[in-house]
Formats: sequence, C-alpha cells, structure tokens
Amino acid sequence: MNRITRLFDIRYPIIQAGMIWCSGWRLASAVSNAGGLGLIGAGSMDPGLLREQVRKCKQATNHPFGVNIPLMYERNDEKFSILEEENVKIVVTSAGNPSTWTHILKDQGFTVVHVIANSKFAVKCQNAGVDAVVAEGFEAGGHNGREETTTMVLIPQICKSVTIPVIAAGGIASGKAMLAAFALGAEGVQIGSRFVATPESSAHPLFKQMIVEASEGDTMLSLKRIGPVRLLKNNFFREVHQLEDAGASADELSALLGQGRAKKGMLEGNLDEGELEIGQVSGLISELKPAGEIVEEIMKEFRDVQTKIIQYSFK
Amino acid sequence: MNRITRLFDIRYPIIQAGMIWCSGWRLASAVSNAGGLGLIGAGSMDPGLLREQVRKCKQATNHPFGVNIPLMYERNDEKFSILEEENVKIVVTSAGNPSTWTHILKDQGFTVVHVIANSKFAVKCQNAGVDAVVAEGFEAGGHNGREETTTMVLIPQICKSVTIPVIAAGGIASGKAMLAAFALGAEGVQIGSRFVATPESSAHPLFKQMIVEASEGDTMLSLKRIGPVRLLKNNFFREVHQLEDAGASADELSALLGQGRAKKGMLEGNLDEGELEIGQVSGLISELKPAGEIVEEIMKEFRDVQTKIIQYSFK
Repeated sequence: MNRITRLFDIRYPIIQAGMIWCSGWRLASAVSNAGGLGLIGAGSMDPGLLREQVRKCKQATNHPFGVNIPLMYERNDEKFSILEEENVKIVVTSAGNPSTWTHILKDQGFTVVHVIANSKFAVKCQNAGVDAVVAEGFEAGGHNGREETTTMVLIPQICKSVTIPVIAAGGIASGKAMLAAFALGAEGVQIGSRFVATPESSAHPLFKQMIVEASEGDTMLSLKRIGPVRLLKNNFFREVHQLEDAGASADELSALLGQGRAKKGMLEGNLDEGELEIGQVSGLISELKPAGEIVEEIMKEFRDVQTKIIQYSFK
Repeated sequence: MNRITRLFDIRYPIIQAGMIWCSGWRLASAVSNAGGLGLIGAGSMDPGLLREQVRKCKQATNHPFGVNIPLMYERNDEKFSILEEENVKIVVTSAGNPSTWTHILKDQGFTVVHVIANSKFAVKCQNAGVDAVVAEGFEAGGHNGREETTTMVLIPQICKSVTIPVIAAGGIASGKAMLAAFALGAEGVQIGSRFVATPESSAHPLFKQMIVEASEGDTMLSLKRIGPVRLLKNNFFREVHQLEDAGASADELSALLGQGRAKKGMLEGNLDEGELEIGQVSGLISELKPAGEIVEEIMKEFRDVQTKIIQYSFK
C-alpha cells in the first residue's frame, strides 16, 4: 500500500496510460481487473463514443478505472458531464492548463491527476488542487515536453518540487524500471507502450506487430516546431524529418501532418502514411501479451529486484 | 563487492568520468581516495601533459585510478605507452572502435573499459575482449549517441545484449539514481557532471557556477549533423540552434564550431563564446562540494534508498 494505491483504491500502483486509438474499454478493464488502474483514452473519442466505452468498461470490471482527457480537444464539458453521470470519478487530464478544470472537478468529487513534464507545471498542478501528477520523461511515446528531460532526471526534480504523489512515465515497461522509478521517488508508474502491444488494445494489429519488431533507435522525438511528439520511424516520419532538416516552418510541418494521421496509422494500420506514436521502450518489447499477464509479470519482477537490490553491500 | 569493485579493486562502484578540461589529477585522486575510481581525462591533453598528470595523481593517491582516452584524437600510441611506463593499467576508451586497441592493451595487462550508447557497440566491445562497458544515455553531457536512447531504456537493453558488467552513465548524480541504475541491471555508475562542480575539478570557476545555477531545460543535445553533443545553453548554443533551425549543413556548423571552443568555455571561462559540455542532471546540482564528500553522500543515499525500497509491499 502507498499513497497511489490508496488514492485510486487499487492493488498495484500501475496505471495504464490513456492513449488515443489504443486504449478503449477492453484494455482499461483488463488492467483494472488485474489490480492496476486502467484508463480509457478519450482523446480520440467524441462524447457519444466515450459514454459507450465507459458503460462497457463498467460491465467488464468491478474495479476502479479512469479516463484520460487531453484538454486541448473540444467538448470537454460534455465529456466531464458523462463521467459525472456514469459515476466514473477518476480523471487524468493532460495537454492543457490544470487550473481550468481541476477545481470544478474536485467540487464534483473527482480524483484528478494531471500529466506534466516539468516542475513549473507540477507546482501549478499542486496549487490547483490536483491529487497526483504523472511526470512524463523524454523517452515516452506521443506528445512530450520541450525541455527533453528524461525520466531519470525528471522524477527527482518533480519529487523535489511538490509534495503530492508522483507517478513516473516514460521508458517503463518492466518491474526493473518500476523499481528504478520508485528509487527516484515515484509512488506509481504509468505505462503506455507495453499495454499497446496486447490483444486487448484497440491498436491495429499491424501497428502492434511493428512495435514488437522495433529495436533501438527506432523512435525519435519529432515535430518539435509544432509540438514535440515521439514517433516510430516510418515513411511519414522520414518525410517529417526531411522537412525539418531543410528548416521547414511550423506551418509547413502542420500542412504535411494534416488531419487524421494518428488514426490512419494507429487504428487503421496504414504504416506508411500514418503517425505512429510510441515510446522508446518499444525496443524492449518483443511479444504481444495479455494485459493482465503484463501486470503480474511487472509486479513479480518488481519483487525480485527488491530482493536482489538489498543484497548489494559496499563497505 | 561486485564485479565492478573487483575489476578495479575499489571500495565503491562509482567511476568519475574522464572529461576534457575538467578532470585532471586533483579530481581523479580525490575520487580514488574516497573509494571510487578517478579517471584523468586525456582527451584534452598532449602526451607530455598526460605524463605529468599521471605522475601527480600517483603521488596524490595510493588507490587505483585510470585514464580516459577518446580514440578520435591523435597520438594514442604515445599515450598508451606512457600509461604502460607509468604502470597505470586502467583505461577507459571512448569515441572510436573498440577493436582497434583492446587486444593490444589486454596483451599488455590493461583493464579496458569502453564507452558505448547502443547494443551493437556493446557486443562489439565484448567480442573485442573489453572488461566492462560504460553505457551512456541521452541525458549525459558532451558527446552522445545518435539513437538518443535514455539511461532508463539503454541499461536494460545493454544488459540483455552482453554478459560483461555494465556501468551506467547519464543522469546520475545521487544515490537514488545509482540505485535506479542498479535496479535496471548496472553494476556500477559513471558520474560526470556532479564531479565537475567540485573544488578539485579543473573547470573554470565561472563554468562551475553556471552548472550550479542551471535548471530544467538548460541543456540540449545539439550539433546532431556533426556529432551529437549535449551543451549548456549559452550564446554559442543559441548560434548553433539558429543555424540548425535554418537547415545548416554539417560544414556550416563545423565552421561555426571552429577550433578550441570547449577549452574556451570550460577551461577559460568564456561563457558566451565557449562550448559548455554538461549533462541534463546539472539541473539537480545546486552547490559545489568536495569530490570525497560527494562519494560518501551518494553511498549513504544508496543505502538509505535500499532500506526504503524493500518496505514497499503490494499484495
């Protein structure tokens, strides 16, 4: 037990990241049933779909689960109303200002977590009344911080700047990495990439296969002039990279990106033209595995490393 | 005791990075006297100066110390001859091919460590007969790998690919981070930035001050078209960044870089025009401190975190 398991009333301090196109009710309920906290990724859902997903998730698990809502999209008020109506009271907000929604959500009895990548925003979260922060390092997939601070450096920095519990994200897909994050001061971990490579994730099978086959150096932080995002290297990535190398403007990059690239790649499996968001740790993922097994394996390895690490003695 | 303390015959598995302009005999002997392994950074020394530094270091400590020799510079044969003559038999090679020198050095009885940033080179090191590798993550200062793999992801990858011991580098300046590295599979840590901010380092006082004052986002991996190097943000960095943003070629960047930029900044204290190489972890360094105290503090914190981490129980 720690502050994170108590906050969410869960068994293990493992949060499955709410990811666009990849984390619907099947994945979220599988993780929650295994003792972690599953999150439905609402960033790629309109309010109607979100309600449907939430209802299905409630049928699939009796354990707590939550919803990730990136604040940069529209119709947030409708989405939060649905969560209120459906009595799903754990929300992870991201990609926006924690001051805008937190006090409203807290008044309605929500548990509110916000995703950050630097101390300034962590302090802002704490002042806004957020219950915990997810601190996301440079190695994480998808949208990322401009400072490029890695998990190893970020977690101690965030723990120094706030007193609310810190959930580490970025580069974590194993019990070893979970223990490393705890050594750095985290009280929970948020895991994304590892849960995309599961039968329960709604990612396209071809995208899952590409994750399993990815190795070192196969992802790169890109599109920095628009907003940094970590991509798996494919034809689309190479087009972006060429433009960036030639000194392209944010407008030119936005024009290339266009609309619907992430859906095309991650949901529809167009591996050439799609935007494939995934973490650097995909290089360490070598097979698809059910989400529940992943949770159990991570916890087993966490305990094994605990036992191993205390044996080191340097006098 | 572990494979790293036995390999070097030292008390603590802490290696002080051999850094150009910053790590002469004063720093190396202070770290070795404190129970770690000090390294003289020969990259910025001609053979004559190296011999002088080695002799002074031998007078200042009875404990083992070593020398870092970046293979991309000239007169390596002379430098290795000096080490042989002076009976300093620990060498850390970097920035080059481990196959070129390792067998020669091993035949002469050297302990050989090589610095790498990906599994391919780690395997190459092992095949060449290297005794241990330093695996250096994206967050490390100075020259860096093209894959941009962070310490959190890199260490498990390297440990999976070789059986020789792995020394973790990049983002490590505390006992917490050391324990995190051990959880990931490392058996030693190489620490650079933290030891630059000591009275014993030969860095210019103004550079040391700038490290102490640095905070999040104040370093950035730069000059990727020539060879990636992590720099502290100053006027020179901003010039580089502008050129890169405009799509400058490697030649244009090399012309801007010119000769002697690192010396100008790090040794001579020209904070505007110099090239200031330092790690991302500088954001966590807030005061100058004697190298020996740093070693003791890291080991104390390592033990404290060991005790704390075993108390986590999730059932």
